[in-house]
Amino acid sequence: MMRHAIELAGQGRYSNHPNPRVGCVIVHEGRIVGEGSHLKWGEAHAEVHALQAAGAAARGADCYVTLEPHSYQGRTPPCTEALIRAGVARVFCGALDPNPKVHGEGVRQLRAAGIEVHSGLLEPEVRELNLGFEQRMRSGLPRVIVKVAASLDGRVALANGVSQWITGEQARADVQRLRAQASAVLTGIDTALADDPQLNVRDPAIELRGRQPLRVVLDTGLRLPAAARMLQMAGETLVMTSAANLLPGAAAAARLEALQAAGAQCIGIGLDAQGRLDLREVWRELGRRQCNDVLVEAGPTLTGSLLHQGMVDEWIIYYAPMVLGGDARAMAVLPALQRLEEARRFELQALSRIGTDAKLVLRTSAGSATNV
Amino acid sequence: MMRHAIELAGQGRYSNHPNPRVGCVIVHEGRIVGEGSHLKWGEAHAEVHALQAAGAAARGADCYVTLEPHSYQGRTPPCTEALIRAGVARVFCGALDPNPKVHGEGVRQLRAAGIEVHSGLLEPEVRELNLGFEQRMRSGLPRVIVKVAASLDGRVALANGVSQWITGEQARADVQRLRAQASAVLTGIDTALADDPQLNVRDPAIELRGRQPLRVVLDTGLRLPAAARMLQMAGETLVMTSAANLLPGAAAAARLEALQAAGAQCIGIGLDAQGRLDLREVWRELGRRQCNDVLVEAGPTLTGSLLHQGMVDEWIIYYAPMVLGGDARAMAVLPALQRLEEARRFELQALSRIGTDAKLVLRTSAGSATNV
Repeated sequence: MMRHAIELAGQGRYSNHPNPRVGCVIVHEGRIVGEGSHLKWGEAHAEVHALQAAGAAARGADCYVTLEPHSYQGRTPPCTEALIRAGVARVFCGALDPNPKVHGEGVRQLRAAGIEVHSGLLEPEVRELNLGFEQRMRSGLPRVIVKVAASLDGRVALANGVSQWITGEQARADVQRLRAQASAVLTGIDTALADDPQLNVRDPAIELRGRQPLRVVLDTGLRLPAAARMLQMAGETLVMTSAANLLPGAAAAARLEALQAAGAQCIGIGLDAQGRLDLREVWRELGRRQCNDVLVEAGPTLTGSLLHQGMVDEWIIYYAPMVLGGDARAMAVLPALQRLEEARRFELQALSRIGTDAKLVLRTSAGSATNV
Repeated sequence: MMRHAIELAGQGRYSNHPNPRVGCVIVHEGRIVGEGSHLKWGEAHAEVHALQAAGAAARGADCYVTLEPHSYQGRTPPCTEALIRAGVARVFCGALDPNPKVHGEGVRQLRAAGIEVHSGLLEPEVRELNLGFEQRMRSGLPRVIVKVAASLDGRVALANGVSQWITGEQARADVQRLRAQASAVLTGIDTALADDPQLNVRDPAIELRGRQPLRVVLDTGLRLPAAARMLQMAGETLVMTSAANLLPGAAAAARLEALQAAGAQCIGIGLDAQGRLDLREVWRELGRRQCNDVLVEAGPTLTGSLLHQGMVDEWIIYYAPMVLGGDARAMAVLPALQRLEEARRFELQALSRIGTDAKLVLRTSAGSATNV
């Protein structure tokens, strides 16, 4: 039943940002009488959908819900109240809600009302649903997922810059799903200028329920042209630039105006010692904007900076079965190492074949790498 | 039954070079009465082992044998005769023997004796057992398998040359099995000088029945020191060098003598237009020496030459979950490309997790790449 609830939770995977993905199954005398999924922010939670479907059959029933029911009045009334009012006998939760406003309080309220509550059922699988939400709730920062498409020898473009398309159609379709699962898709200005990417989700098979991930461009010098394709797509684009460019009378004033007229939101970010945008500040800003998962699709410089600064929580590499040679562009620019022990290490989380390509998913060894 | 015969054939995987791997099962009235595997060159073939085990029960039985029984007097008498004499009723072969001395003749002899013969059972799986043998029988050339151990960004050593150990213990154990399956293990002089590799099989769990793969060093300038570790190991080392180094009175005469005294066999190979050993001649020589599969464990220069010349039949890459950065050494040195369409492409044959590392097996798209 919990496994079924996890499947239901997955239905909201592309659409319920910034809320956690939650699924719920109501079982009465061994029979499913109601099920639900939280599909969109501000709309009914999974428990409410499931209780509505169950109707009177919810009385005395068991409720399997992936996440602890929320216990406070937000955009929707507390789910704890709905479960108590419906008269369910037992509640099985996959995990406690990492939101400090709930964490344990939902369970307490249910128990206070005489409901038997068990928590931690299939917890590892359940937590996989909401790694980004959990990270944001715990640290205020999003989970950073870096995607790279490379040749077998780790090259992302020829020496002359040619890079489209290294990976095959199915890998590119997989990236559409990665984008749809993310709160935001982030790139650097070099990639934005070189490839003029759309950075949107355009696969009609993906049900976004009206949203598009936020597009973010790290653009220290405010060089993004107002004619950039991403500004013509549905959804919002956020340009992060040196705060100096936003001062009245700045040399970039005309470009700023043109970008804003084209629909971009431009905000100032402090610079680091190298004169680049301070990435810690970037993540804090995106955390404030309720981004759970940020997908980074960037070039070797930004990818290298993130790796070097230990800011990559998950690294997804698609290897196309071709070889480009030693003068082609590296996937990550990093300072030279003297010893292998200095190399940044990951854990291989998963590997699979995607069409003609191989997909590797790597994670930092111990929990979050976003270390601010 | 044929699947069981394939398993039996695998028992000779490490030991029966240069013969093909063959397994055999004799079935009488639905019961296995005999089975066998060809374990070592010059010893009994799989059919003979199986017939011996079956004894009188072979009369009227079915024989499942992965490869067409051989039909001529070689080191051992023809297996066709043994099957006819034992009175088996039917023979199921996985594939015809690619050896032109047999190809179809074994089936013809069995049929002429009144035995019902079916060929082609599980042929793709059966042929996987003997890809190298098949290639040598068809072309006179070995199958070339290139192994690379790299970081996620395709680096095989730090800029300062440090490379041991990038991959984990289990990947290195897997390489021991690759070596044991090969007729020869080949490297370049740069790797031989930098790493002083042993290039032998030293895992006691691998049953080699007394053999070691031939070690081959491509050493244009005859620079391999007589103190090289590989010369102290059981088994033979073949040094391929510029033919000029073998002429009486050559500058390398003293080094030649020292190498020969240390047990190395040194032979001359013609040079290509770049003044390097002509790789086509290398493969022809190894084919003459009955090498079925040659495992190449070399550095970026030789790996790059093989890739560039289209001489890689199978490419096995172990990716360690670490990143070394853009200045670290590339896995393959190749001429610069102008267009992605010029890139050499492979097919992803298999991918798996080996301990902490990922293993990708790639093959050239259409049959043999060893194009002489």
